Amino acid sequence: MLYPIVWQNNSVVLIDQTRLPNEYAVIEIHRCEDMAEAISTMIVRGAPAIGVAAAYGMYLGAREIETSDRTEFLHQLEEVAQLLRSTRPTAVNLFWAIGRMMQTAYETLGTIAQIKQILLETAQTINAEDIQTCQAIGDHGLAALPKTPEKLIILTHCNAGALATAGYGTALGVVRSAWREGRLTRVFADETRPRLQGAKLTAWECVQEGIPVTVITDNMAAHCMKQGLIDAVVVGADRIAANGDTANKIGTYSLAIVAKAHNIPFFVAAPISTIDFTLSNGSQIPIEERHPSEIYQIGDTILTPSGVEFYNPAFDVTPAELITAIITENGAFAPGELVKCHTISQ
Amino acid sequence: MLYPIVWQNNSVVLIDQTRLPNEYAVIEIHRCEDMAEAISTMIVRGAPAIGVAAAYGMYLGAREIETSDRTEFLHQLEEVAQLLRSTRPTAVNLFWAIGRMMQTAYETLGTIAQIKQILLETAQTINAEDIQTCQAIGDHGLAALPKTPEKLIILTHCNAGALATAGYGTALGVVRSAWREGRLTRVFADETRPRLQGAKLTAWECVQEGIPVTVITDNMAAHCMKQGLIDAVVVGADRIAANGDTANKIGTYSLAIVAKAHNIPFFVAAPISTIDFTLSNGSQIPIEERHPSEIYQIGDTILTPSGVEFYNPAFDVTPAELITAIITENGAFAPGELVKCHTISQ
Repeated sequence: MLYPIVWQNNSVVLIDQTRLPNEYAVIEIHRCEDMAEAISTMIVRGAPAIGVAAAYGMYLGAREIETSDRTEFLHQLEEVAQLLRSTRPTAVNLFWAIGRMMQTAYETLGTIAQIKQILLETAQTINAEDIQTCQAIGDHGLAALPKTPEKLIILTHCNAGALATAGYGTALGVVRSAWREGRLTRVFADETRPRLQGAKLTAWECVQEGIPVTVITDNMAAHCMKQGLIDAVVVGADRIAANGDTANKIGTYSLAIVAKAHNIPFFVAAPISTIDFTLSNGSQIPIEERHPSEIYQIGDTILTPSGVEFYNPAFDVTPAELITAIITENGAFAPGELVKCHTISQ
Repeated sequence: MLYPIVWQNNSVVLIDQTRLPNEYAVIEIHRCEDMAEAISTMIVRGAPAIGVAAAYGMYLGAREIETSDRTEFLHQLEEVAQLLRSTRPTAVNLFWAIGRMMQTAYETLGTIAQIKQILLETAQTINAEDIQTCQAIGDHGLAALPKTPEKLIILTHCNAGALATAGYGTALGVVRSAWREGRLTRVFADETRPRLQGAKLTAWECVQEGIPVTVITDNMAAHCMKQGLIDAVVVGADRIAANGDTANKIGTYSLAIVAKAHNIPFFVAAPISTIDFTLSNGSQIPIEERHPSEIYQIGDTILTPSGVEFYNPAFDVTPAELITAIITENGAFAPGELVKCHTISQ
C-alpha cells in the first residue's frame, strides 16, 4: 500500500509528488510553514490528501506555540489556521480539516500540552479515517459501476489515487476495488494538462499496482469514447456543492460533456468531507488560478513564443446534471440526493 | 506575409516548423525523398501545405528521372507519387495534389523535358492558388461569423494558419480577415496536445501579426465557453467527407461537442481540395496513429513512468451535425450542402 502522508519520528513524511514518476523521494515536514509551502507547491496535492496534510500542519503549528495562556494559544492557533487556509482556495477538505482541528482545540479542556496532544491524535484520526473512507468509496463504487460489460475500461482524469488521499484513493479506489474483483480490463488516464498528474501520478500508481494503463492526451477522450473504448468515467472532486455541482481538476467539465454525448456513465468519487453544504450550487465555488508557467514550460522546454497571454484555471465546475452518481463512503448517491448522505454521515 | 513553402533557386525552401517558436530556421529541399521525410516528420504540416509541398515533391522527383521514354517516365513518376502518398494518410490534399500532378503528366504531350517544365509550373500554380484560396476563405469566413458581438473572441485548435497553407491560412485566414476589419478582440488558442501546434505555431503567428492571443490547455475550452469568453470556434480540416463529416487534428471532435453544449457556432475553414467526395461519410476517413513519444516526451523531459501504454491518434472525425458551416473559397456552406460548393468549383 502506498501512503503519501505518514506521521513518523515527530514529523510528517510526504512523498514529493512533484518529482514522480522519475524519482521517488520523501520529504520531512517539521513546521507548519513548510507544510503550507508543500501544499501550495503541490508536493502534496489532491483534496483529501490536502485535508490530512493541513490537519498535521495545524498540529505542527500548535506545538510551536509557546504560551500557557489558553486564549493566547487559541489566538495563535487561528493564525496557523489562516496560514494553511491561504494555500489553495478550491479544495474544501482543506477548510474542513482545519475547521475540525480548530473545533477540537476549542472544545478540549485541560492544559496547553494536553490540547496539543489531542490535536496530534485528531490529525492521526483524520489520516486513518481517510484511508477507511477511501476503501469504503472503492467498494460502493464497485457496486455502482455498470453491470455490463463484465470487464470494464474506466477512464479517469487527473490523479484521485492513493497519492491524492491518505491511501487507496477515491476514483482510483473504485479502480482498485474493480481490479481486485476482476471487473477491470484497463484504465485510460487523461494526461491532465497542465500539470500532467494523469501521465505522471495515475500512470505511476497503476504501474505500481500492475493495472494496465493507457495514457492519452485530454483531447483524445471523446474520440476514444466514439471508438467504444470507454465503459465508464470515474473522477475525484475538490469541492461538491449541495446540489451536486462538482469542482474538480480543469478538464473534468469537458470530459463530463463528452461522456454524456456518448451515453457513458460519469461518476464522481469523493469523501463526504468534500461536500460543501454551505454552497447551494457550483457557481459559488472559488476557482484557483495558477501561474502561467504551468502551461508554457515543461522541464527546461519553453513551449510558447514571448508575447503570448495565458489563462490557467486549475479547476472547473461540472454541473450535477452531467453526473450519474456521486460515490461516497456512505454509498453512491444521485447528485440531487446528496443531502441524504449528509444525514447518514452525521 | 508568411510563406512556409517557397520555390527558390531550383529548390523548395521550407520553414522548419518543428523548431518554431524558439528558432526560425529554413531548410532547402532538393529531392523528393527529402520532401517525403519533411512531410512525415512534420517539418511541413497542415493539410493545404502538405498538398503544396507534395506537388513540389512530385516535380523534384520528376526532374531526376533519366529517361526519354514517356512510358518509363510515367512509370517512375508513379513511384515518386507512391513515395509521397505513403507519408501521411489522413490529409486528402496530399492525394489531391499528387493526383493533379500525375494527371498533368499524363495529359501533357511533348518531350520529357517539356513535361517536367509543365510539372514545375503546375506545382507553382497549386502554390499560388492556395494563397488566393485562403484569402477567399478568410473573406467568406468573415461574412459567416456571428454579427454580434461586434468584436469577437475566436477560439481555434491546432494551427490552420499561414504555416499550414501556402500563406494566410484557413482558420487563421478567417481570423486575419476579422482582425483587419476590426471584428476581432482576441484569439484563444488551444495548445493542442500532443504536438502543441497551437502553443507553438498559432501563438507565434498571432504574435507576428500583432493579434492578441491567449493560450489555454485543450481541456480548458469548455470552461472558457461557460465563462462566456468564446464567441465562435474556427478550425481547419484535413479531410471532409461528402456529408460534411470532418477529420481534423485530435481534439477537434471534443471541441465541437462542447461548443454545441454552449450554443457557440463551430466553423470549419478549408479549401475545396480538402473535401473528399469519394467518401460518403467520415467513418471511411483513415486516421493516422503516430509514435507514442509525441505523448510521453517533451524536449528532454520524459513525462510518464515505464510500463505505461499509449494511444496516439493524430486526428478525429467531427460529425456534420456539430458543424455550423464549412467555409470554402466559394463561400460558407451548411455541411449538408457541400455538394453545391463542388458544383460551383468545377
